[in-house]
Amino acid sequence: MKKYKELSREELETLRSELQKAFEDAKGKGLSLNMARGKPSPLQLDISGELCDALTSSSDFITESGIDIRNYGELTGLPEAKKLMGDMMGVDADKVIVFGNASLPIMYDTVSRSYAFGVNGSTPWCKLDKVKFLCPVPGYDRHFAITEQFGIEMIAVPMDDNGPDMDIVRKYVESDDSVKGIWCVPRFSNPAGVVYSDDVVKAFATLKPAAEDFRIYWDNAYAVHSLYDDAPKLLDIIGECEKAGHPDMIFEFCSTSKISFAGAGIAAMASSADNLAWVKKTMTIQTIGYDKVNQLRHVRYFKDIDGIREHMKKHAEILRPKFEAVYDEFEKELSGLDIATWTTPKGGYFISFNAMEGTAKEIVAKCKEAGVTLTGAGATYPYGKDPKDSNIRIAPSFPSAEDMKKAAEVFVLCVKLVTVEHLLGA
Amino acid sequence: MKKYKELSREELETLRSELQKAFEDAKGKGLSLNMARGKPSPLQLDISGELCDALTSSSDFITESGIDIRNYGELTGLPEAKKLMGDMMGVDADKVIVFGNASLPIMYDTVSRSYAFGVNGSTPWCKLDKVKFLCPVPGYDRHFAITEQFGIEMIAVPMDDNGPDMDIVRKYVESDDSVKGIWCVPRFSNPAGVVYSDDVVKAFATLKPAAEDFRIYWDNAYAVHSLYDDAPKLLDIIGECEKAGHPDMIFEFCSTSKISFAGAGIAAMASSADNLAWVKKTMTIQTIGYDKVNQLRHVRYFKDIDGIREHMKKHAEILRPKFEAVYDEFEKELSGLDIATWTTPKGGYFISFNAMEGTAKEIVAKCKEAGVTLTGAGATYPYGKDPKDSNIRIAPSFPSAEDMKKAAEVFVLCVKLVTVEHLLGA
Repeated sequence: MKKYKELSREELETLRSELQKAFEDAKGKGLSLNMARGKPSPLQLDISGELCDALTSSSDFITESGIDIRNYGELTGLPEAKKLMGDMMGVDADKVIVFGNASLPIMYDTVSRSYAFGVNGSTPWCKLDKVKFLCPVPGYDRHFAITEQFGIEMIAVPMDDNGPDMDIVRKYVESDDSVKGIWCVPRFSNPAGVVYSDDVVKAFATLKPAAEDFRIYWDNAYAVHSLYDDAPKLLDIIGECEKAGHPDMIFEFCSTSKISFAGAGIAAMASSADNLAWVKKTMTIQTIGYDKVNQLRHVRYFKDIDGIREHMKKHAEILRPKFEAVYDEFEKELSGLDIATWTTPKGGYFISFNAMEGTAKEIVAKCKEAGVTLTGAGATYPYGKDPKDSNIRIAPSFPSAEDMKKAAEVFVLCVKLVTVEHLLGA
Repeated sequence: MKKYKELSREELETLRSELQKAFEDAKGKGLSLNMARGKPSPLQLDISGELCDALTSSSDFITESGIDIRNYGELTGLPEAKKLMGDMMGVDADKVIVFGNASLPIMYDTVSRSYAFGVNGSTPWCKLDKVKFLCPVPGYDRHFAITEQFGIEMIAVPMDDNGPDMDIVRKYVESDDSVKGIWCVPRFSNPAGVVYSDDVVKAFATLKPAAEDFRIYWDNAYAVHSLYDDAPKLLDIIGECEKAGHPDMIFEFCSTSKISFAGAGIAAMASSADNLAWVKKTMTIQTIGYDKVNQLRHVRYFKDIDGIREHMKKHAEILRPKFEAVYDEFEKELSGLDIATWTTPKGGYFISFNAMEGTAKEIVAKCKEAGVTLTGAGATYPYGKDPKDSNIRIAPSFPSAEDMKKAAEVFVLCVKLVTVEHLLGA
């Protein structure tokens, strides 16, 4: 296949006509497919139906540790749930607090707590003139929304296949004491699907921050969400930070939202003893405790980390064909044209697509016109602004594999059409 | 029975010896009873066991409104859950947001949101020199803990059998624009058990606050928690505020924590459209949504407000004898002695006891010595400081009725002993 840039004007015009015709045909099909958000499909949700049977009226509501889960108490979560969530993150149960139904509110509350009261004794961020967060890009729009809401300045940091550019991270963190945090999705990053390399994890753990209240926000959302057995592993950053003598530099988050039920799972934070004590200090004012019934339900259902791993294989079986439908279509239709790059993650919920500069918004709009909804272009950048207007996040989880194939076809068509128009217009 | 104050020194000394002996006997029994917190007893929790059967793997996980409760979405809660919780508060479903497992975090988050971002467009409280809250006393220690944590100055306001002294409330609210809120438990107040009279509710609704961001925090925790059929009703303040042209002045909160499972129920807030829009603006950053599985579980189990009312009768049957054990013991042993007053609420979770000035801490300590744990004296006042050292909160729900009788006997004994010692020492 010939590279688009090598086509003559005449060839491009012929191509545009063909693509326009195909686009009109696609529009005529009246598709309505949504690849905007990382939502599990109903088939995936069906896998966890029996979670609801794990606690019934005839169940023992007292835990092995002797706690009546139906009553108040146990602010930091059931010991059994701490063990399960700790095992997911590869840390001991005593480094874990189990919270409510999802991890996003834990992250929000951690920022909110730092804003109002300061991180473990340091100045509350609301009393500072300037607070900054580093944001590896492309990244997760909901992370950026939290920092934006608190008026925190976001600095984009480029990523490659190994994770964030650690030279840039180090420069900012070690020279600027207004840099208080960095958002990371270290395994199957949202949306690029990058698994941070061991070197990158170690580089994080050995940072020497200018600010004593700098913290790494390690959103391990896809800790056990591999699509393939040979998916890369992630080094335990909590252990690495301890080894490097910086145990307080890290907050790790995880949840079962994409394991059991989305938004009705259980979620946890892991950190050092000092950080957990700080969290508890405000937590004990904010709540009498989270939903221990749902915590025990999850423990009884999954039993242990092996139970979760087996469960995740069922998710992978459903998700893999959808990812592969996209990978195949991209490979077949786009490789060699030199108009786009894309990632082919071995896990997680997203594929990151880089179109020709200045075309992403138009591609998303064209797809919408043909009935395929994507995440808004720019969403993967702080303030929703992709300076190159190039990155598009693809979320293949929700549609069926068959629909995903159709959606990928429409997407590829729109990429080609917009790119040709762009080349002709330029 | 003779009033203690009318006893001669000799009579008091004889009485002290008798009481000391009785106290030593009581200590010897090795009791271990806890009346410190408003915890439901295991028998009460058993009532709701079948809640867990309301959703099983064979259930339909799609609501009547067409929502898959296992997936993301519906930030403000299921329509069916809004209806149920709205009916509990006597307001329309469109005035309700359903949140997570308890109402305390909703209140905390509302204060936190006001602190960081300001109430619906007004100056964030963190940017103000001084923010004050009114605290009707005796009141709920966890309310006071929230305002204390955010550095909000608390002003105690006395209450009588009709609710807070509205002349004092009006004076502060209408003259001081740093007064931004008031904590209220309007039905079966914690701990006095007062149901605010219609006049008091109307007086609240017609306040003309000096601060545009003044809000009434109406914690309707015991909305349906009557012990007797003839328990006083509470006027709907949301309707009254609307009538008075102040729809934005009120936040109402409620939960099923003491209906289904403590800390594993569902909780809600009711307010005006403008206030709800303001809440949603930050909520959409904080969370993708609360646990809809538990919301539907509650809806399927209770069906409607009548289902809740029937359910609450079962709670009342368990709780009533415990309250009456206390009422009877107090009446039998303390009436006529002129050394204490107490409330006899027709619902809720608490009894408020006023001992002779300067004796509450000592009484609580004595009870502890004899194996009966009470809420710390002073807890019912802002900053944990009861200026008269007189008020003690009694929480009869957790022990069995039989144990409650024993605990009340010990309590009465300690009240008498400490009072006599006080009279002799004074």
